[in-house]
Amino acid sequence: MTAPLEFYFDFSSPYGYLAAQKIDALATAHGRTVDWHPMLLGVAFKQSGMAPLTSIPLKGEYSKRDFDRSARFHGISDFRMPAVFPISTHAAARIMLWAKTRDPAVGAKVARALYRAYFAEGKDISNPDTAADVAATAGVDRAGARAAVDDPAIKDALKREVDGAIGRGVFGSPFVFVDGEPFWGLDRFDQIERWLAEGRF
Amino acid sequence: MTAPLEFYFDFSSPYGYLAAQKIDALATAHGRTVDWHPMLLGVAFKQSGMAPLTSIPLKGEYSKRDFDRSARFHGISDFRMPAVFPISTHAAARIMLWAKTRDPAVGAKVARALYRAYFAEGKDISNPDTAADVAATAGVDRAGARAAVDDPAIKDALKREVDGAIGRGVFGSPFVFVDGEPFWGLDRFDQIERWLAEGRF
Repeated sequence: MTAPLEFYFDFSSPYGYLAAQKIDALATAHGRTVDWHPMLLGVAFKQSGMAPLTSIPLKGEYSKRDFDRSARFHGISDFRMPAVFPISTHAAARIMLWAKTRDPAVGAKVARALYRAYFAEGKDISNPDTAADVAATAGVDRAGARAAVDDPAIKDALKREVDGAIGRGVFGSPFVFVDGEPFWGLDRFDQIERWLAEGRF
Repeated sequence: MTAPLEFYFDFSSPYGYLAAQKIDALATAHGRTVDWHPMLLGVAFKQSGMAPLTSIPLKGEYSKRDFDRSARFHGISDFRMPAVFPISTHAAARIMLWAKTRDPAVGAKVARALYRAYFAEGKDISNPDTAADVAATAGVDRAGARAAVDDPAIKDALKREVDGAIGRGVFGSPFVFVDGEPFWGLDRFDQIERWLAEGRF
């Protein structure tokens, strides 16, 4: 079986960022590719009644500590919790989806650049101009990226993407499907690893 | 450093049960012991606004699948999701705390027996008589265990224990402190392992 790993993430998700640093190597080690799916967690939160981690009493304080510790544990040295958090990720998701529609490999490259801009460099990628600037560094046309944010067709495409994700049960970030099996969280990558190596367990 | 691992758990927590099958070996491998602390998640949920996992749309369905898969992943073959879930764990927690007050090792033994009764044998340990029966199989006096459920001093002790846990930031189960460092979830046992082996990272 060589179906791609279906990787759902929100650009404002710290664990999604950490997972994004690991997913390609995990897939490659098992002869797979990665299909990058931008997700809007806010829409899923409305359905599940959940809330951004850091806004939850008790859990929020722990989470901030765990983001940094998990980054160190996984050897991801460039992670810096952004000063502004969480942010709206519509602009970043639309630009990434626009790039992906033209070329999936470029879409993944744009996704990595946007994630790095926010979680390593502290850039506010909720701003469409900033997000377009970042996308341009990943090799896409800057004006095209900026226009995608306001393009009704791209807006619709993102809405379909998010509805589809929720329809499949995606409620958090990162969320990965391996041959249909759902795995939530970077802390399920050990289970994904075994699943890929040995099959269903 | 040889301080015990402080292990907080709720008797109605599936991941707490799985963690309870792993915590002793983890501690022993690093020259530590385990201090078992019964917790009432319902009280923490009131403070955090969280809810039982299985009651959350989208996340609930995933969780049920993940409980079973995580049990298989960790080689815990006796896990069976109970028909009645979640349950009130006041009775079990009071009996365990009563046993612990008399002898911590016996308290841990009672905790393991109660957890097994619920998550491997499907017994409803929210029932004080059932919980006392189970405790008796772990070697404590059955009448004493049953009386503990209604003992004002034990009720107060559990309340102090739960308030103390929340005061330390415990919001979920399992929750482990290692020399003051908080770790939430069985899926942080890999980080605990490194922390014990190599110290702060």
